[in-house]
Amino acid sequence: MRHSLAGRAENAMQARILAQLRDEGPLSKAQLADQLQVSRTTIAAEVARLAEVGLAGEAGPAASRGGRRSTLVDLSEDIRFVGISIGATGMSVGVTDGRLAVLATRHRGCDIRQGPEAVLAAALALVREVLDEVGVDRPMGAGVGVPGPVDFHRGVPVSPPIMPGWDGYPVRDAVSRELGCPVVLDNDVNVLAVGEQHAGVAKGARDFLYVKIGTGIGCGIVIDGDLYRGVNGCAGDIGHIRIEEFGPTCACGNTGCLEAFSGGAALARDATTAARSGRSPALAALLQEKGELTAVDVGTAVSQGDPQAVQLIRDSGRHVGRVLAALVSFFNPGMIVIGGRVTGLGHALLSEIRGVTYRQSLPLATGNLPIVLSELGDEGGVVGAARLISAAVYSP
Amino acid sequence: MRHSLAGRAENAMQARILAQLRDEGPLSKAQLADQLQVSRTTIAAEVARLAEVGLAGEAGPAASRGGRRSTLVDLSEDIRFVGISIGATGMSVGVTDGRLAVLATRHRGCDIRQGPEAVLAAALALVREVLDEVGVDRPMGAGVGVPGPVDFHRGVPVSPPIMPGWDGYPVRDAVSRELGCPVVLDNDVNVLAVGEQHAGVAKGARDFLYVKIGTGIGCGIVIDGDLYRGVNGCAGDIGHIRIEEFGPTCACGNTGCLEAFSGGAALARDATTAARSGRSPALAALLQEKGELTAVDVGTAVSQGDPQAVQLIRDSGRHVGRVLAALVSFFNPGMIVIGGRVTGLGHALLSEIRGVTYRQSLPLATGNLPIVLSELGDEGGVVGAARLISAAVYSP
Repeated sequence: MRHSLAGRAENAMQARILAQLRDEGPLSKAQLADQLQVSRTTIAAEVARLAEVGLAGEAGPAASRGGRRSTLVDLSEDIRFVGISIGATGMSVGVTDGRLAVLATRHRGCDIRQGPEAVLAAALALVREVLDEVGVDRPMGAGVGVPGPVDFHRGVPVSPPIMPGWDGYPVRDAVSRELGCPVVLDNDVNVLAVGEQHAGVAKGARDFLYVKIGTGIGCGIVIDGDLYRGVNGCAGDIGHIRIEEFGPTCACGNTGCLEAFSGGAALARDATTAARSGRSPALAALLQEKGELTAVDVGTAVSQGDPQAVQLIRDSGRHVGRVLAALVSFFNPGMIVIGGRVTGLGHALLSEIRGVTYRQSLPLATGNLPIVLSELGDEGGVVGAARLISAAVYSP
Repeated sequence: MRHSLAGRAENAMQARILAQLRDEGPLSKAQLADQLQVSRTTIAAEVARLAEVGLAGEAGPAASRGGRRSTLVDLSEDIRFVGISIGATGMSVGVTDGRLAVLATRHRGCDIRQGPEAVLAAALALVREVLDEVGVDRPMGAGVGVPGPVDFHRGVPVSPPIMPGWDGYPVRDAVSRELGCPVVLDNDVNVLAVGEQHAGVAKGARDFLYVKIGTGIGCGIVIDGDLYRGVNGCAGDIGHIRIEEFGPTCACGNTGCLEAFSGGAALARDATTAARSGRSPALAALLQEKGELTAVDVGTAVSQGDPQAVQLIRDSGRHVGRVLAALVSFFNPGMIVIGGRVTGLGHALLSEIRGVTYRQSLPLATGNLPIVLSELGDEGGVVGAARLISAAVYSP
């Protein structure tokens, strides 16, 4: 077992060095000095301190650039972060190195409605497995995402509509006690957004929206490279935007919410209706076989060419597109990433979302606006959660 | 006439000193050193440089705080900024001092559709009047707001729906040439938002939305104290969010836009219909008297207790509220300010907007969300435009 590390950046310059090494890889002292616009002397002094606390150090001579030979600096090879991404019906857990490369992961199904004790115990059991796999006793930090609004500063879920029993539960402190390291807790969609920004299709994007269509629907907002959480930490809660006054009842208690039209649960509900009505032979056969239908079954029926299933996807995409068109007019983002379980439904959904969004927004805002599927899938949650805790550990 | 000034901040520390003096008033060197967390020596050196370029200087001894006596520093008394706020049907022009106190203003009606040459000539004539009134030949800078999307960096309007003839016209450079000073051009709603932030109901607010309901409808977005313009500079264009697929035709060419339901022009249209149908005796009398109706006439009919006019305001407020509820769920702002000509309609409109917004958003986002009327009215545009150019002059 490697020894545990308790280091943390001591000042803003160390934080900038660590973030640069995380995002760019090993750099010479000369390159660090250039990129951060400080003297080599400053870089050398701070790197020496970072070596003492076990966060970074010298990693041999850098390739010559013609002048004085410089020394290569890299993050410590001992840094290990844990990422825990908990959704309504499944969880992903992983261990990364200091640059957030995933070293080991586990996925399993879960039911968020079983409450925090049961779900967190299951997640922590997976964490133990991945830590054992990479031979680490205690990680340097852990990030946790859950499918509901979170008070980021207190580290607790706040009135989460689809998480009965979790309201106010001290998730951050409970996980921190178990793992013996600092922990951050955030909304699952924020976690997915920063994961996609670090290693996915939004790599390098400064202003973008990540829209998760899973059991619920939510949106991560990245402004100028950073997550925007809103004044109360509940920004991005687009699943509960009301799109029709007298629409279906939503888990939040209101009627006509986007989620009640287009979330995974809504899709399963509409698929079941279509199966029972006899309108969809493919869905009826799946219902017969499995006893109940999920959003994934709609994808199966679509792949079998079932027109009714295609219509369900189109309707779902149209509602999402209407809301996204409004957000594009309001926010003028540089990119929209669509993720979540429902993206298994793929291009039928994406093309409908694109069509409505492009048609209903002003040309200036959509002229150069990519609307794309997430690249990372489940692993995005692990990378994103690790990235959030790395930002905390790598800052003073 | 005072001599003209050509100064500008030379570095980030000078910029911070100038912004502090603008927003806080005269401060002692000791206070500046405390607030900006640098040494008194640094402050003294930078203030000496600012005095040389005519931006700030010593203004006598500060009141003693018990220890060593400190010197008071203030912005130069010679600084004069011009603010020009052009709307669809009226313009406001003013001169301010370095702290953006308004020294002289003029308002007049205009028709934005007459095109840039005619409208800018009228605005510049008013600018000459106010400059003469305060005895200044050449201001230190000017800010200009226009009612449409603007490419902030190029200083030109971009495909503005209600500004025929203005697309791509070099407004910033034309005004700069005439006044012989640096100029910034922005969307009128952004200008109003920063005006309200500097001197109105949003003073001190870090994250808020300013919603202007005038001939058109737009939204200024302030995040962490600064305007958010979006990737293409057209963020906040909420007037063209489609709220009903088969709604009335909008000036932008689409159908069912918020503006086509609730903008001033839409209100005038619906009021005229109500007057002609005989449903509203008050509006019919106003139409008879004036030959045509505006949004202001609806306010007059409301004040006369006309039920049909009250219904028009309620419908308008309901549509605005539906869009704001969606934006609250998405953005979780700390405050919403309602401004623009239509706010003459006052509390009937406000109460409807509040009711719908509070009812349709999640409690976490609205629990502590003030929705209030703008305090500044026309003068907000002058202060905001002056503030935008002050930010440019006060930065390196």
